[in-house]
Amino acid sequence: MIEKVFRDPVHNYIHVDHELIYNLINTREFQRLRRIKQLGTTSYTFHGGEHSRFSHCLGVYEIARRITQKFEDNYAHIWDAGESLLTMTAALLHDLGHGAYSHTFERLFDTDHEEMTCQIILSPDTEINALLLQISPDFPEKVASVIRHTYPNKQVVQLISSQIDVDRMDYLLRDSYFTGTNYGEFDLTRILRVICPTPQGIAFKESGMHAVEDYVLSRYQMYMQVYFHPASRSMEVLLQNLLKRAKILYPVEKQFFQLTSPRLIPFFEHQFDLEDYLGLDDGVMNSYFQSWINGPDRTLSDLAQRYINRKVFKSITFKAEQEEELDTLRHLVADVGFDPEYYSAIHHNFDLPYDIYRPNDQKKRTQIEIMRKDGSLVELSQLSPIVASLSGTVHGDSRFYFPKEMLNEAGIFSHYNQDFLSHIHNDQFIKGNDYEH
Amino acid sequence: MIEKVFRDPVHNYIHVDHELIYNLINTREFQRLRRIKQLGTTSYTFHGGEHSRFSHCLGVYEIARRITQKFEDNYAHIWDAGESLLTMTAALLHDLGHGAYSHTFERLFDTDHEEMTCQIILSPDTEINALLLQISPDFPEKVASVIRHTYPNKQVVQLISSQIDVDRMDYLLRDSYFTGTNYGEFDLTRILRVICPTPQGIAFKESGMHAVEDYVLSRYQMYMQVYFHPASRSMEVLLQNLLKRAKILYPVEKQFFQLTSPRLIPFFEHQFDLEDYLGLDDGVMNSYFQSWINGPDRTLSDLAQRYINRKVFKSITFKAEQEEELDTLRHLVADVGFDPEYYSAIHHNFDLPYDIYRPNDQKKRTQIEIMRKDGSLVELSQLSPIVASLSGTVHGDSRFYFPKEMLNEAGIFSHYNQDFLSHIHNDQFIKGNDYEH
Amino acid sequence: MIEKVFRDPVHNYIHVDHELIYNLINTREFQRLRRIKQLGTTSYTFHGGEHSRFSHCLGVYEIARRITQKFEDNYAHIWDAGESLLTMTAALLHDLGHGAYSHTFERLFDTDHEEMTCQIILSPDTEINALLLQISPDFPEKVASVIRHTYPNKQVVQLISSQIDVDRMDYLLRDSYFTGTNYGEFDLTRILRVICPTPQGIAFKESGMHAVEDYVLSRYQMYMQVYFHPASRSMEVLLQNLLKRAKILYPVEKQFFQLTSPRLIPFFEHQFDLEDYLGLDDGVMNSYFQSWINGPDRTLSDLAQRYINRKVFKSITFKAEQEEELDTLRHLVADVGFDPEYYSAIHHNFDLPYDIYRPNDQKKRTQIEIMRKDGSLVELSQLSPIVASLSGTVHGDSRFYFPKEMLNEAGIFSHYNQDFLSHIHNDQFIKGNDYEH
Amino acid sequence: MIEKVFRDPVHNYIHVDHELIYNLINTREFQRLRRIKQLGTTSYTFHGGEHSRFSHCLGVYEIARRITQKFEDNYAHIWDAGESLLTMTAALLHDLGHGAYSHTFERLFDTDHEEMTCQIILSPDTEINALLLQISPDFPEKVASVIRHTYPNKQVVQLISSQIDVDRMDYLLRDSYFTGTNYGEFDLTRILRVICPTPQGIAFKESGMHAVEDYVLSRYQMYMQVYFHPASRSMEVLLQNLLKRAKILYPVEKQFFQLTSPRLIPFFEHQFDLEDYLGLDDGVMNSYFQSWINGPDRTLSDLAQRYINRKVFKSITFKAEQEEELDTLRHLVADVGFDPEYYSAIHHNFDLPYDIYRPNDQKKRTQIEIMRKDGSLVELSQLSPIVASLSGTVHGDSRFYFPKEMLNEAGIFSHYNQDFLSHIHNDQFIKGNDYEH
Repeated sequence: MIEKVFRDPVHNYIHVDHELIYNLINTREFQRLRRIKQLGTTSYTFHGGEHSRFSHCLGVYEIARRITQKFEDNYAHIWDAGESLLTMTAALLHDLGHGAYSHTFERLFDTDHEEMTCQIILSPDTEINALLLQISPDFPEKVASVIRHTYPNKQVVQLISSQIDVDRMDYLLRDSYFTGTNYGEFDLTRILRVICPTPQGIAFKESGMHAVEDYVLSRYQMYMQVYFHPASRSMEVLLQNLLKRAKILYPVEKQFFQLTSPRLIPFFEHQFDLEDYLGLDDGVMNSYFQSWINGPDRTLSDLAQRYINRKVFKSITFKAEQEEELDTLRHLVADVGFDPEYYSAIHHNFDLPYDIYRPNDQKKRTQIEIMRKDGSLVELSQLSPIVASLSGTVHGDSRFYFPKEMLNEAGIFSHYNQDFLSHIHNDQFIKGNDYEH
Repeated sequence: MIEKVFRDPVHNYIHVDHELIYNLINTREFQRLRRIKQLGTTSYTFHGGEHSRFSHCLGVYEIARRITQKFEDNYAHIWDAGESLLTMTAALLHDLGHGAYSHTFERLFDTDHEEMTCQIILSPDTEINALLLQISPDFPEKVASVIRHTYPNKQVVQLISSQIDVDRMDYLLRDSYFTGTNYGEFDLTRILRVICPTPQGIAFKESGMHAVEDYVLSRYQMYMQVYFHPASRSMEVLLQNLLKRAKILYPVEKQFFQLTSPRLIPFFEHQFDLEDYLGLDDGVMNSYFQSWINGPDRTLSDLAQRYINRKVFKSITFKAEQEEELDTLRHLVADVGFDPEYYSAIHHNFDLPYDIYRPNDQKKRTQIEIMRKDGSLVELSQLSPIVASLSGTVHGDSRFYFPKEMLNEAGIFSHYNQDFLSHIHNDQFIKGNDYEH
Repeated sequence: MIEKVFRDPVHNYIHVDHELIYNLINTREFQRLRRIKQLGTTSYTFHGGEHSRFSHCLGVYEIARRITQKFEDNYAHIWDAGESLLTMTAALLHDLGHGAYSHTFERLFDTDHEEMTCQIILSPDTEINALLLQISPDFPEKVASVIRHTYPNKQVVQLISSQIDVDRMDYLLRDSYFTGTNYGEFDLTRILRVICPTPQGIAFKESGMHAVEDYVLSRYQMYMQVYFHPASRSMEVLLQNLLKRAKILYPVEKQFFQLTSPRLIPFFEHQFDLEDYLGLDDGVMNSYFQSWINGPDRTLSDLAQRYINRKVFKSITFKAEQEEELDTLRHLVADVGFDPEYYSAIHHNFDLPYDIYRPNDQKKRTQIEIMRKDGSLVELSQLSPIVASLSGTVHGDSRFYFPKEMLNEAGIFSHYNQDFLSHIHNDQFIKGNDYEH
Repeated sequence: MIEKVFRDPVHNYIHVDHELIYNLINTREFQRLRRIKQLGTTSYTFHGGEHSRFSHCLGVYEIARRITQKFEDNYAHIWDAGESLLTMTAALLHDLGHGAYSHTFERLFDTDHEEMTCQIILSPDTEINALLLQISPDFPEKVASVIRHTYPNKQVVQLISSQIDVDRMDYLLRDSYFTGTNYGEFDLTRILRVICPTPQGIAFKESGMHAVEDYVLSRYQMYMQVYFHPASRSMEVLLQNLLKRAKILYPVEKQFFQLTSPRLIPFFEHQFDLEDYLGLDDGVMNSYFQSWINGPDRTLSDLAQRYINRKVFKSITFKAEQEEELDTLRHLVADVGFDPEYYSAIHHNFDLPYDIYRPNDQKKRTQIEIMRKDGSLVELSQLSPIVASLSGTVHGDSRFYFPKEMLNEAGIFSHYNQDFLSHIHNDQFIKGNDYEH
């Protein structure tokens, strides 16, 4: 096959020299990813971040291609060249099952994007599956097992999913580029130079230790600065409350929803199949929300309007031990005339930037291994004091969200609002009269 | 007002320090631009180019802000500071009336995005209009007149629309950044240093002449390389044929369209109002096309499927004098079973990269003026031999589009295909047996 | 004065709108900085890092200009506009006293670049002094006192010299750009947005806390990756041994040095004045070293040749407690025929990336203050767990340097070399037979 | 050999995987290039442009490596893999014979850097020659013949030297990066994708035609904006006049020059050998000029001081037909007390950005060939109207240089100066009373 290239702002060119990869990109299931934004509600805060999962998946594939190419050239004795195509395919397809606003959607409708990815790969009805079968009868199953982390070759599994994998490497660089923040940048070229297969998985040569350290720090910075941005989470909270309202309304307003949002019905009815799932994307969802603005339910209509027109909730942080006291605020929200069930929310965002392997953990981490000159392996935080300091520690905050109107000091509800404001200091929740004393 | 900033990958930060600008950004009419891609079908060729008109409009505003700020600081005697807010507002709002895939849509449904922009600005029903009225009763009309080029102050009009204006400056840089091509880059900082108001309009100091020249060349390169890319035009052709089919089908399949694509009805009926127009965006259109895939008309269904799943037509170039002979190809397309009305197309793309002012032209150009040290003005192509060579010359090509299947040498229709292939040499149309002799 | 600009790859343009600044740049003392590399021996490792102190000083000035401009615009009540010119001048001139390879040179010849900076500013014989006097009779003294940290206004002093100052901000970005490493990049634009004067000095608004954190991490990474690079330190060690040899030879080879290196004589004689000092630069020093290659002393000649032709020493790390045992290696170096006094060296490189203010420390640090919404100040490591982990900790290593020839396993001295090699494992010093057991 | 890399800001990494290349880089003749600035006097105008010929040569090599690698992989039938090492070697060494300020130096001392490159390659006394001989006895001669364009394989010759060669590709990108102008950027990745060997030389596939066009335009812009910058040429003029003065003084001040500038003597005496030539570099020359400041000749001393402290001459443009009339200006320069022989100069800078092959030309150009789909070749300007417009046309200007003091309207010579100023309008030479009428 003559090599095809896709111009890419992050990797310059995406190179495709295997027929399978080219054909997979051209399937309807993969092209669908063009209609799903990589960053979901975050693009409402960082207006440049409007790139799709399509472009991310190409990028993940490209990094996998470069790594496996290098492994074939330099580590033939320890890397099985037969695994390269599997690795590239799994890299390309790993996000296939993502839907519109997946994270929020999943919480409300019990879907699971990883599970959907595997279904698309394994279902005899998809173009993807038909192409994978042309490689071998068990190829679809192999790809799915990589995605499920059950594939026996740990080198392949770790490349696709671990604390430093092709997925994260692409999204840090890509989200950084498109949002215009620089926090996600790290030295990919150097990491590609020092990554190497070991009998048990993947390691990085010690000469590139600082590049790996830099990657861990970049990841931390992107979480703190971009992914956990209070305004993006505000849009997520709005979306969540909007869908919650729709779900509750559905039994009493079936006709309205059938007319305005037919493709959501199977999800309201808890009976959806793969085809239903693939029919949803950002454009479909947003056009439904736009229809809801003119609907009969005042709350649904108002929330839809706020979401579509980006009227974000405001927020303050609070400490775990203060969570009960937030009822005071909810009552004030209700006093002003907003149903706190839909006009307030609690949102936690916490991340564990790095952790060592802990055999007793429920969600074990694959620790990052550094290879010394003599071939021995050392876990990253043993060598890097900065990573040691991050290791096992959790970062983020809990926020209470409420309508911007609560901060309005004038107006007819002003005394409720003043009471509300007395609970805020330095954007944090305080006991109403803590501060005065 | 405390300055607000928006992080932007092209201009680093968009600075907003005027209440009006901030409020305009937060209207529903402006937020709607988030749902319309700047590059339309081009994002199918350059997958990074998925940015919206929202981000472009912020960028145009930011350049206008920097220029007017500079004019106020350095050219108080010749620039009326009272025009700055008008300029920034017109810059921000200039694309407000763009709809989904405007260029194609306009051709089929007789809409006009510039006219729609003015309607949004002037209609008493919009949030935009209400905000503009707060400045002064004639402010909406003033903004509209800038957009229509009728505003008396030519400085303002030329900043917003001329051969080197804030709109073009932003889109060259932005499209270049997001697509990952570098062809659109030019030295904005230098241009902002040398731009200056004159009694008759806008000029550029001679010391920055080469930066202006570079801008003209970048513009030319972006047209040649990105905007005129054959594959993007192929998607445009597909879209055009798809909408043409829908329009023709509508009278006989009204119910189908009412069910699947309600918001298009006013346009099929030639009776739409502003609200109808604002209800269309990329997401709405794409979800309609998805619905059409399962519709009753085989042609509509197939074209919708090709569009959604990016099955692009192929193309060859032809010369003006060959246009009649293309019937031979259309017949072959029909012989293979495709209706040439919907499965072939002619697409012309020509651009006049730069031109001097020609008093007798229908569409007069505002020529770029270079200011010498003694204050006299010289038209750009007088000083730049490269611009002189481009000036008044038209660039681009005409292409004939057809289904990829026509290139398939094997199969049951192979002798038609071979005949078809005999008309192509070096991706150009030739008389079938020209080449052999 | 009409604004002048200098095109700069890091800050795009350096803007000069004050006559004094423009004239200072044009003095012979400032132009001399063009002939001194910013990174000294590091350019032998990172070949792109060949930029001069001239370009760095312009960059430091530009950051100071942007900050003081902003302080004047937004903090007129707390920032005295009269201090802006002083701050910009001190920023521009802070490195004026640097000589060729200052750090090494200072150690051997008891010079002090900070002291020399002040002499140049205060001496009635310099063009710099004459210009400063035109501002006011005490202006030279004021500039010098800022450089010496004794100026009463702590805002000015901290801008010029603290843990986050205009000097460091420029060199991290500049060294990063020219060497082509990305480790030094941080979000300067954001830091310039959140920096603010306080009655006691300088602080950063909490909304930019992560940008400050990122700066601290970038600084750490640049030290680990670039400034402490073993190969650069190897060139420094070579230079040090070369100058040491010259110094010792001088009394017995006066005529040779007078002929080949006249401008070094005052330093050999411990009697130099300002004019002597200003006569030395990289070009002068290097041309002297080239002359020494053909000199009568074999060691001087060989070391000069190694330095000029970049024949770097090799190195291994060792732990503090092993320092005594290095004699074993020195003996082996001697056995092979190299004088260990000149052909081996110990080099320590340690850095304290961040520290809080400790009243009892000899070298007190000005801690970085974060300003909360209510105006209260919090020390950075209180808010940032990553900075907390770095705070007060020292990073770096100690290395033992020796000729590359020691690693040569073949040859007539091979048994010494094998013995030598038995002391190295994973590039670290070990007891000769530690590892086998 | 284990691959070595050099971190490079332009190409990210320079990869070395052939022992010969690594050893060549480590020779004294190649390391010497670290001490010669790529841009000569231009770094006085663009302060970032302080990079050396060393870094440029590594970059040229790297481009050659990427191209030959690709040729080996994709064009084995038409590219002889045995030529790859020769190509890379010639690329690395092509500038070896450059000395300090070569262009000016050559004019005054009849040296020729291309000739010197060949001498270094062929002389039995160089480390370079010894290494090349290890490949084969005729390898030095082969490398030299590539540099002299006499090597029979035109593919190799054109890669090293033609209108689009590895040398130009690197210097446009590198000079652009370091000076901080963007004019030299072009799409190297795309050019590397479309470059291909033909039986007669080198061509570029039509799909990359616009990238080649962009390269030609970038080259033009760099000449206009950077290389022909009036201030850089002013420093060149100063240097030329300074060396001219020294040359004339030499016979009467031999002792002075022997003491202050011993390594120039062989050139004053017209008797130099290779060793003499290699002994000169920027640092040596500059330290000589510094010594001349305190010399006995007032003109030499003043010119040296002006050069070292960057006191540039000013300039105006003039037309060819005006050249004779410049005597008026020279007389005025003399009237004010400056010897016009040393305090004025004419400087022409003209460039032919692109030309087709013209068999009758003295200096024939190798035209750029574009390869169509059917393998036929078309000359670039046939396809690109912009290149056509540049083709065969000469760009640049002629300038008359004089001391800045001539523009000083006040002072004792003011009436001469006013006369002088009356000859200048818009920075151009006019007849003294042309303009008034």
